[in-house]
Amino acid sequence: MVTKSKNKLKIIPLGGLGEIGKNITAIEYDDEIIAIDCGLGFPDEEMYGIDLVIPDITYLLNNREKVKCFVLTHGHEDHIGALPYILKQLNVPVYGTKLTLELVKSKLEEHNILSNCTLSEVKPDEEIKTEKFSIEFIRTCHSIADACALAIRTPEGVIIHTGDFKVDYTPIDGEMINLQRFAKLGTQKVLLLMADSTNVERSGYTVSERVIGENLTRLFSVAKGRVIVATFASNINRIQQIINSSLFHGRKVAFSGRSMEKISNIAIELGYLQLPEDQLISIDDINRYPSNKITIITTGSQGEPMAALSRIAYSNHKKITIERGDLVIISASPIPGNEKLISRLIDELFKKGAEVIYNSLEEVHVSGHACQEELKLMHTLIKPKFFMPVHGEYRHLRQHALLAENLGMDSQNIFILETGQVLELSKNSANKSGRVSSGSIMIDGFGIGDVGNIVLRDRKHLSQDGILTVVVTIDKASFSVLSGPDIITRGFVYVKESGDLLNEATEIVKIEIDKCMEKKIKEWLVIKSNIKYSLGEFLYNKTKRRPIILPIIMEI
Amino acid sequence: MVTKSKNKLKIIPLGGLGEIGKNITAIEYDDEIIAIDCGLGFPDEEMYGIDLVIPDITYLLNNREKVKCFVLTHGHEDHIGALPYILKQLNVPVYGTKLTLELVKSKLEEHNILSNCTLSEVKPDEEIKTEKFSIEFIRTCHSIADACALAIRTPEGVIIHTGDFKVDYTPIDGEMINLQRFAKLGTQKVLLLMADSTNVERSGYTVSERVIGENLTRLFSVAKGRVIVATFASNINRIQQIINSSLFHGRKVAFSGRSMEKISNIAIELGYLQLPEDQLISIDDINRYPSNKITIITTGSQGEPMAALSRIAYSNHKKITIERGDLVIISASPIPGNEKLISRLIDELFKKGAEVIYNSLEEVHVSGHACQEELKLMHTLIKPKFFMPVHGEYRHLRQHALLAENLGMDSQNIFILETGQVLELSKNSANKSGRVSSGSIMIDGFGIGDVGNIVLRDRKHLSQDGILTVVVTIDKASFSVLSGPDIITRGFVYVKESGDLLNEATEIVKIEIDKCMEKKIKEWLVIKSNIKYSLGEFLYNKTKRRPIILPIIMEI
Repeated sequence: MVTKSKNKLKIIPLGGLGEIGKNITAIEYDDEIIAIDCGLGFPDEEMYGIDLVIPDITYLLNNREKVKCFVLTHGHEDHIGALPYILKQLNVPVYGTKLTLELVKSKLEEHNILSNCTLSEVKPDEEIKTEKFSIEFIRTCHSIADACALAIRTPEGVIIHTGDFKVDYTPIDGEMINLQRFAKLGTQKVLLLMADSTNVERSGYTVSERVIGENLTRLFSVAKGRVIVATFASNINRIQQIINSSLFHGRKVAFSGRSMEKISNIAIELGYLQLPEDQLISIDDINRYPSNKITIITTGSQGEPMAALSRIAYSNHKKITIERGDLVIISASPIPGNEKLISRLIDELFKKGAEVIYNSLEEVHVSGHACQEELKLMHTLIKPKFFMPVHGEYRHLRQHALLAENLGMDSQNIFILETGQVLELSKNSANKSGRVSSGSIMIDGFGIGDVGNIVLRDRKHLSQDGILTVVVTIDKASFSVLSGPDIITRGFVYVKESGDLLNEATEIVKIEIDKCMEKKIKEWLVIKSNIKYSLGEFLYNKTKRRPIILPIIMEI
Repeated sequence: MVTKSKNKLKIIPLGGLGEIGKNITAIEYDDEIIAIDCGLGFPDEEMYGIDLVIPDITYLLNNREKVKCFVLTHGHEDHIGALPYILKQLNVPVYGTKLTLELVKSKLEEHNILSNCTLSEVKPDEEIKTEKFSIEFIRTCHSIADACALAIRTPEGVIIHTGDFKVDYTPIDGEMINLQRFAKLGTQKVLLLMADSTNVERSGYTVSERVIGENLTRLFSVAKGRVIVATFASNINRIQQIINSSLFHGRKVAFSGRSMEKISNIAIELGYLQLPEDQLISIDDINRYPSNKITIITTGSQGEPMAALSRIAYSNHKKITIERGDLVIISASPIPGNEKLISRLIDELFKKGAEVIYNSLEEVHVSGHACQEELKLMHTLIKPKFFMPVHGEYRHLRQHALLAENLGMDSQNIFILETGQVLELSKNSANKSGRVSSGSIMIDGFGIGDVGNIVLRDRKHLSQDGILTVVVTIDKASFSVLSGPDIITRGFVYVKESGDLLNEATEIVKIEIDKCMEKKIKEWLVIKSNIKYSLGEFLYNKTKRRPIILPIIMEI
């Protein structure tokens, strides 16, 4: 329960704490709420069959009249991906930088709701205002262009939310993180800092994106055939560097993969990506040029089975087949959980005759997040009164709190929150004060939230030992078996080799039904439960497996 | 097909190439075969419900009379774990070092076959002989004590198989890798080198195990409460270092976890582990000592849900509860695929109030495998005529081949094999010559090989979208529906919230049955297939999911 204190400033993370992804934070003062970001999460391995996860925004819906807008820090899925689902329930204006909004637009178009939504572009250094808040966008560096931190002026003081960021002194697009602005704010008393914790376990600095460009150019210089580079479609600066290396070595560039084609198109149109028109070719035309004059930039750096690079590797791509002499560069790091998929993809590419370069062999990727020294810089410039680490698993938040303590901050002023917990602030105080409802809404196909724990538990159980259905038709009047019991299995044993086992199982069921009939037990539930128990024990003793047993009694 | 060449030396890997684990290699000359190692593999994430994987040894069974023995390089699961299953089919003598055989013994005991098996201890530097082969054990360093490489003398020349190894100049047990012996063999013409490729992607050297001891002692010195260290039970040297740090700081040692208790027991008895009797205490007695006088060494460093550390973290351990002030050290690296489990475990320990140290924060683990510089040393000492990289995914084998080439080896003399491929050798030649049957046998509960691709495909399908069973009872004579159709689902949708969907689905089935009856279609198969199709389309259009649809017709 949230305490009913009045006129207090509240920070309410509805996602992104104790987890990677699903970032969304409500900032409330009196009768106004602004929401920062609206990201999606990816299902963990226990969420069988689930496509996506979005935040539970019950709290915002219950305070619908208070919510003034969504303010976006940048255009990554974990910061904007839930918008199409959430705006359908809560249609408020959305503010963000140009590229961020373009990416949002294309999502809203896919969901057919663009025309109903209000998107307003904000430039870095600009400010938007509501009655209680003013929100200033401050440029940062990240693995997507147009990323911003937010300085939010409230009646109690200034809150700085870094968004995802790093410090790159030599950024590709020349757009430096506005360190001076953070420094200036730091001299004016910042009430609360919320800062990105993703890389807090890494010492030192994140290497400049520019270094990757140098390495790519070197690798391109020895490539004898085509160069195929896989990276994240949203990493415009990386793509620019791949383009630069290609043009330097006289290679034309083609894009492959739905999101790569879409985003590169947007980025070229908006001027975020510089690629002379005559140097861009269609995938359909790659065979019209010599191999050593072609670069293909593609999706699939995470080994996603349906993405372009996997289709290329496993010979399922209509236009691209691996040839001996192709150089494939995987310009990305594995997102935890994808290691095995990527490993298999690399093996397959090697087997097909390509050379493959990946991050364990050469430095062809850098992170978009600040390491320890960059975080220290940010803390030191901003000197906030209170600190709340965000964007990370619990252990990252914990390490980030420790880093702040080691910089001299009072541990009493550092707050590690969980998703749904509320931090109340005034000019001089901060304290945790209760919880609001929060959590994960699972999306499976068209279903939003219709798959719950029971369904997931069954899916897990089915995936382990399969299912065994027992059907029997019983005449209600005479209380006799008319047909069956028949046993049908899926995912349990290979039937052809297990005929004996299933015959024995059928006998067990018959005996169980006979027993019930003798005892005149006529409650189907009891008969079903007896069948389940006896058959379950029999099968476990024989196979050490526990399939789901589904007894069905058809009565006539 | 294997060519019918006579008197040729053949190397036949039956596992371990293009994969991590399941190591087993047959070496054949004329009428003799010796098999090196007999390991198990762990199921990949597509092998739903599978417990273990063992190699397909059809080739050995078909040449049963030729097989003279198993020779083991060391006692890790991926080198000895399949023995209990394989020896039941092919009972030949097993040779290995003392600790290796003790670990095998305890496995054979669990499978109740120890008394039928012949285990013979070999000491490092000793040799065993068959008619055609003599096999010399040469000490190496690895993350388990008593690891050996093998020098196999054959009529065509000497083969060296490194087993898993690294070069540690300051090993904890004082038992150095016998570099001199490899150097000596190198001066006497080695025909073929088979060498560990696991860490070939890593530059430089693997840090000495001793460094970990120094770090542990430093960490112990600031620990205020209990120290709980999780590591691999078989890493005796690591456990010795944890013991040393404990004794140095006046802490008693307790072991937790089934394999940890078992293996530490064996190691103490055999003298591989030095721990004064009065310093070893039972887990039952830990509460009789002050917290800062206790070290607990436990299993579960991979986040395995049933292992001791997970049970401790999630408050399911009968004897150990996390207290504020506990220091938990995870002295291991994540095996690929376990990252998320471990990450969740660390979060949970932090939340319960423990300090947690893991490899991203401090150097508390080193690998047991040789990095590039160590591999270069081995190649340079041994100077083989032919080289075959082993123990690794395809990309590791490929990189290892490249490393050998860079050392000046002729690429014609390097052979990357797949599991099941045959390498034929003579004094002056080597070439790939066909294949033998090979593969993975999946173990699920008591079932060995009874789960095949169809069952796995169904389990995967069930795990994604669940199952929907449609039952209807039909009177054969009158060709009319007596009962049903009834629809029961598992893992598809939460029924209470989807009543309408399932009602509509029932209507679809009724219509489909009516259609068949009108058309006088009396083949159950046709009716079932029509139900499947119509219902499948309906459900996909409504939910974008494709559950397994199981139509059952009961006829009377």
